[in-house]
Amino acid sequence: MEGSPPPADKVIRFADGSGYKFPQTRWSFSNFRQLIPTTQVSRGMGAPAPLPRALRNDLDAVSFVPLGKDTPMTWAQAFDANYTDGVVVLHKGRIVYERYAGALRPEGQHISMSVTKSFFGTLGAMLVAEGKLDENAQVSRYVPELKDSAFGDATIRQVLDMRTGLKYSENYLDPNAEIWQHTRAGGVLPRPPGYQGPQTFYEFLQTVKKEGEHGGSFAYKTVNSDALGWVIRRATGQSIGQLLSDRIWSRLGMEQDAYFTVDSVGNEFAGGGLNAGLRDMARFGEMMRNQGKFNGQQIIPASVVQDIAKGGDKSAFPQASFPTLPGWSYRNMWWVSNNEHGAYSARGIHGQAIYIDPKAEMVIARFASHPMPNNPFNDPNSLPAYMALAKHLMK
Amino acid sequence: MEGSPPPADKVIRFADGSGYKFPQTRWSFSNFRQLIPTTQVSRGMGAPAPLPRALRNDLDAVSFVPLGKDTPMTWAQAFDANYTDGVVVLHKGRIVYERYAGALRPEGQHISMSVTKSFFGTLGAMLVAEGKLDENAQVSRYVPELKDSAFGDATIRQVLDMRTGLKYSENYLDPNAEIWQHTRAGGVLPRPPGYQGPQTFYEFLQTVKKEGEHGGSFAYKTVNSDALGWVIRRATGQSIGQLLSDRIWSRLGMEQDAYFTVDSVGNEFAGGGLNAGLRDMARFGEMMRNQGKFNGQQIIPASVVQDIAKGGDKSAFPQASFPTLPGWSYRNMWWVSNNEHGAYSARGIHGQAIYIDPKAEMVIARFASHPMPNNPFNDPNSLPAYMALAKHLMK
Repeated sequence: MEGSPPPADKVIRFADGSGYKFPQTRWSFSNFRQLIPTTQVSRGMGAPAPLPRALRNDLDAVSFVPLGKDTPMTWAQAFDANYTDGVVVLHKGRIVYERYAGALRPEGQHISMSVTKSFFGTLGAMLVAEGKLDENAQVSRYVPELKDSAFGDATIRQVLDMRTGLKYSENYLDPNAEIWQHTRAGGVLPRPPGYQGPQTFYEFLQTVKKEGEHGGSFAYKTVNSDALGWVIRRATGQSIGQLLSDRIWSRLGMEQDAYFTVDSVGNEFAGGGLNAGLRDMARFGEMMRNQGKFNGQQIIPASVVQDIAKGGDKSAFPQASFPTLPGWSYRNMWWVSNNEHGAYSARGIHGQAIYIDPKAEMVIARFASHPMPNNPFNDPNSLPAYMALAKHLMK
Repeated sequence: MEGSPPPADKVIRFADGSGYKFPQTRWSFSNFRQLIPTTQVSRGMGAPAPLPRALRNDLDAVSFVPLGKDTPMTWAQAFDANYTDGVVVLHKGRIVYERYAGALRPEGQHISMSVTKSFFGTLGAMLVAEGKLDENAQVSRYVPELKDSAFGDATIRQVLDMRTGLKYSENYLDPNAEIWQHTRAGGVLPRPPGYQGPQTFYEFLQTVKKEGEHGGSFAYKTVNSDALGWVIRRATGQSIGQLLSDRIWSRLGMEQDAYFTVDSVGNEFAGGGLNAGLRDMARFGEMMRNQGKFNGQQIIPASVVQDIAKGGDKSAFPQASFPTLPGWSYRNMWWVSNNEHGAYSARGIHGQAIYIDPKAEMVIARFASHPMPNNPFNDPNSLPAYMALAKHLMK
């Protein structure tokens, strides 16, 4: 959205939904706070923790064969093919590659979509490790208001691993999927005139019905993250913005404040509302790669990182639903490849990712605005690219 | 707004206007971004410029006689009497006093209301000094869309000093005053159902009619600042968020990003939409006190600071309208006391202020949420307090 004012055909407004349509998303994903209310995740006020730079000019030429294709593609070609807004690659803690496009600048923030969930999952697992949350307790112990919803008899562990039985569709291509009711309730999407549905995330959560049993297969449903968010707020007495600042953002030496989109009563969108700087996402990934240590401190317990990195129950991962993720599993709201490098990832629609490759000592943070929400549209050009880059860096 | 979710009687929402009512304002003035869309003013990503601390415990007891009263009051009593959310006092560049209340924290941002205008006036004066704006040119040279409005034949200088003839009332106590149409157009205030008026700040600006002549007395009308904002955007080709970051925020070594509230097409509210950290406001004031130098750099030309500090035409200051400001004047959207200390100030409703006392080498930054908008309700307890503190520090 450029111009003073922008010309009528270039205006991006929340109310008409234009901020969610490609190519407008190339602007709005880097400017979400201009569309809806947000809350701060403070970096504190000290000096940022340095990310040393050791840029390499040989990485753009690294080539790989996209999933399902015969013809190789280079790293540089993949940057464009994935509608990348920015990518940072760390190797052994140093920036070896950094590039921006679209409306993203190093000193800007981009919406991380469901990468947000991995931050909530990490906070939840930290609270379990500290004994502040009992992973075997039912959600209703912490949030009695959810007693009569599907979450009432789900355990914290089942929510953390998304092994809950919920009547809730995450199919982004189906306009009637519950994900849209959920996001409209939270004010993430505009509401139709005369809208009478739930007014907040928490009002929506109370309407979610059970379907099947808890403890079965992993079923990716964003609403689990918002239920976890409510549990975390109750268990800590803090807003998530404050908690994330106190526990992670201010301790990691982030360069920039982050922010959450919030609903009309100030609840953070746990399922996808975190907006942050790209290098700060890389700092978080580097902390994970270093067993929870960064900036001279143990930020999260090593046991939490190890529990995430070793992954969830592979037999509970319904392979048919995730054709681009063979052999993967899901744990504490992280995606775990279980591949030869032990890589694991935070993933968000339209191509957002933090990718940690422990064996290659590599961390990739990426923001994008791919026209298609589902990651199977960009995975073929990104997952093999990450592995090729890892192998190249290991040479 | 506390709780998960906040109880119904504690909810503060934009749509019902509760965020603008005292005592809810004690929360909302420190959390404006949770109510409406905003845009970033980046601090850049370097280390903050230090503000050395030399806290003194003798200042709370400094006493003064409030304007129009007989009984003395102490600095500490004035803090409460003015519903202060935070105050920082610098003496010779060091923090000698710092205190927070309400919902403000050191690492938070508070709305500065019309203190915003002084940032725009300073930017405007910088552009004049650089020859990028001609102060004698008419507004319509830069913004042809304003040709048929009252601003069409006003000069940049007349706008900078608010000596324009406009049909526009700034009476906050009159619900029909144009200030309310202006802020509703910009989305600062909620709109009534079926609202058909202007949709943006700039649409509103085009409707402002002339009343009287330009170049007469100073008449405090917020709409001048938004007209200046449009001129500045056109003259620089930058958004104000970017410009303020490039020219001031990133160069001053601010601790925190600031943010502007924006209308539905991303125009910053020049009249009152800047939200910032309290110590960063103090940094800005300290830079002014040091003739535009701070953090080892000349941030704004000394000639611009001097032009502000020496004040505007005192004979153009309609004394009857400002009974608490005898002998003051207005220049480049700053309030100039012309007192024995040569003090000048940025001022915003409900008690926001940056107060610079060159003779005492003192800078005060204050945020507040006084129940009454007009500063004559808090000036009696603040202006004499500032002078008493200045004299105490000079001992």
